[in-house]
Amino acid sequence: MASFDSLRSFRLEGRSLLLLDQRLLPLREEWIRYDDAVEVAGAIRQMVVRGAPAIGCVAAHGLALAALGAPPERGAFLAAVQEAARVLGASRPTAVNLEWAIRRCLRALQLGLGRGVEAAREAALAEAEAIAEEDRTACRQMGQHTLALLPPRARILTHCNAGALATAGYGTALGAVRAAAEAGRLERVFASETRPRQQGARITAWELAREGLPVTVIADTAVGALMYGGEVNCVVVGADRIAACGDVANKIGTYQVAVLAAHHQIPFIVVAPESTLDPHCPDGSEIPIEERDPTEVSEIDGIRVVPPGVPCLNPAFDITPARFVTAIVTERGVARPPFGKGGTGSGPPPA
Amino acid sequence: MASFDSLRSFRLEGRSLLLLDQRLLPLREEWIRYDDAVEVAGAIRQMVVRGAPAIGCVAAHGLALAALGAPPERGAFLAAVQEAARVLGASRPTAVNLEWAIRRCLRALQLGLGRGVEAAREAALAEAEAIAEEDRTACRQMGQHTLALLPPRARILTHCNAGALATAGYGTALGAVRAAAEAGRLERVFASETRPRQQGARITAWELAREGLPVTVIADTAVGALMYGGEVNCVVVGADRIAACGDVANKIGTYQVAVLAAHHQIPFIVVAPESTLDPHCPDGSEIPIEERDPTEVSEIDGIRVVPPGVPCLNPAFDITPARFVTAIVTERGVARPPFGKGGTGSGPPPA
Repeated sequence: MASFDSLRSFRLEGRSLLLLDQRLLPLREEWIRYDDAVEVAGAIRQMVVRGAPAIGCVAAHGLALAALGAPPERGAFLAAVQEAARVLGASRPTAVNLEWAIRRCLRALQLGLGRGVEAAREAALAEAEAIAEEDRTACRQMGQHTLALLPPRARILTHCNAGALATAGYGTALGAVRAAAEAGRLERVFASETRPRQQGARITAWELAREGLPVTVIADTAVGALMYGGEVNCVVVGADRIAACGDVANKIGTYQVAVLAAHHQIPFIVVAPESTLDPHCPDGSEIPIEERDPTEVSEIDGIRVVPPGVPCLNPAFDITPARFVTAIVTERGVARPPFGKGGTGSGPPPA
Repeated sequence: MASFDSLRSFRLEGRSLLLLDQRLLPLREEWIRYDDAVEVAGAIRQMVVRGAPAIGCVAAHGLALAALGAPPERGAFLAAVQEAARVLGASRPTAVNLEWAIRRCLRALQLGLGRGVEAAREAALAEAEAIAEEDRTACRQMGQHTLALLPPRARILTHCNAGALATAGYGTALGAVRAAAEAGRLERVFASETRPRQQGARITAWELAREGLPVTVIADTAVGALMYGGEVNCVVVGADRIAACGDVANKIGTYQVAVLAAHHQIPFIVVAPESTLDPHCPDGSEIPIEERDPTEVSEIDGIRVVPPGVPCLNPAFDITPARFVTAIVTERGVARPPFGKGGTGSGPPPA
């Protein structure tokens, strides 16, 4: 059986973290070296690396870099590490994996500190590596759980990139795609472009093409027509944060794909590790939605497509109310509605 | 009262037709001169000019150019003109206005031919001019009819460009926007980018900004979230062909905007001149959908955004079943469902 697990978006090399610059895909594959937590936070903010599980892993590694570089006196060490945690945690607001991974790495470091600063450094690095390794294992498990929900010959629409490059490897939504391919059950993946940053066209298509998997790119405007024509028999997406009630924050455009899927009676499956669940967040209205620079909409590769002076809105994420979600798959298994005790957000009932 | 009717996409100059090259907007305003029907057909195919009513007007002018340049012997004259009509008619398949305008211009020319070739030439040119003048008048009338359907403070979402540049002037959907602005009832227009060719970002935003009207551009992925947030209180779009039953062919992405509007209980209004109605077409399944070059999806301004070798789908239009349409407005007035005797297409019921 073929296995599709060849791609990584980050790796350690000595005391440096290397990130694949995802902004340059599919045209160029360049790795950038980071030795400093503030630079890593900048890389997350600028989306050199993106995807909720991946930015969690990378932030944990950033914290480990901070520990490696912090002064050896215990007080100064802790202050430097805590400042790094603050800067890393503030790099992007929506994905909850970021704060989860930083908190976890910080806790390991503090435990290690009982045995001294050097032990704390080792503990932070080991924890960052463990987070990444566990994420890869979780992706494999999610792939298997999701496979059980897919049609026998899956024609999967996915939005944005929830793949190997958005995780520590293998992917969440694309982990399900890979599991389907490994099982000989993948007919085709449709990748919606995902404007403004085109992660579907640029990254999902690159990932799948690199492993020889059948992928077709469509404009975001063609999703409805594709569903109407019967070309898609399931939708699989990742998530950046899932509220207690099952409301899902994910890349802008996910909500409308979910409404369209409900309307066409196509299953809408969300695949995300437990670290994406936010039990402290009762519903989607509590999830902070990042508003990014309007030039992401008004310019493409530096070329203006919107007339100067015309305002653009650029929310990076939206909320899909739980009632549109057929299943949420984590490494622990499959959850179906009702997902929690909370409400399912406001708004009109599903189609 | 301010009037917003300053923009044109084509004009006659002597025996030449000048077209504003809409592919270059918003960065450059360049006019291209045409003296020949085959070149005009090429301009339509390459989308120098686009928009169903505009390509009808321009094709009629192209036919007039053919008549002006055709040999003076009656048989050769008619053969040349008929060949031009064939080439112009084959330039794009979906908009029915194209064949309507050519047929109308050809009929006038044939009538004129009873008085000789020179009279036929004059008749063709006069008919082309009449088609354009009538289209401008129709746009004004549609604007007034649509105004009566709009909320008192209209926050209009429009898709693609159905404006002054898509018609002989003033516009269909944007004619309604202009009528609302003239009546002091326009709060804001949201222009969805309209990938792959970005007519919303490039042309609608340019048109409205040029006349000082309040327009905000959003990615096509943000339509659902915008509606969910209550930002939009009506959708107004144009059409490329309307079947007898009321099914509407329009720019790819229109169908999903209509499903989303129905789901959020937002009126979805189609504005198009009578020349867009196709009584010979019973329903949307009979309307030919143009599939354009996949590089429109895979490249933007010549820069690849999809990895080489990955296939892209690029349907230029989709069909919105009549059951999603709140009203169809023509110059003759407002039609509400049921629109015709035919069915309303297949597929699941509206939300």
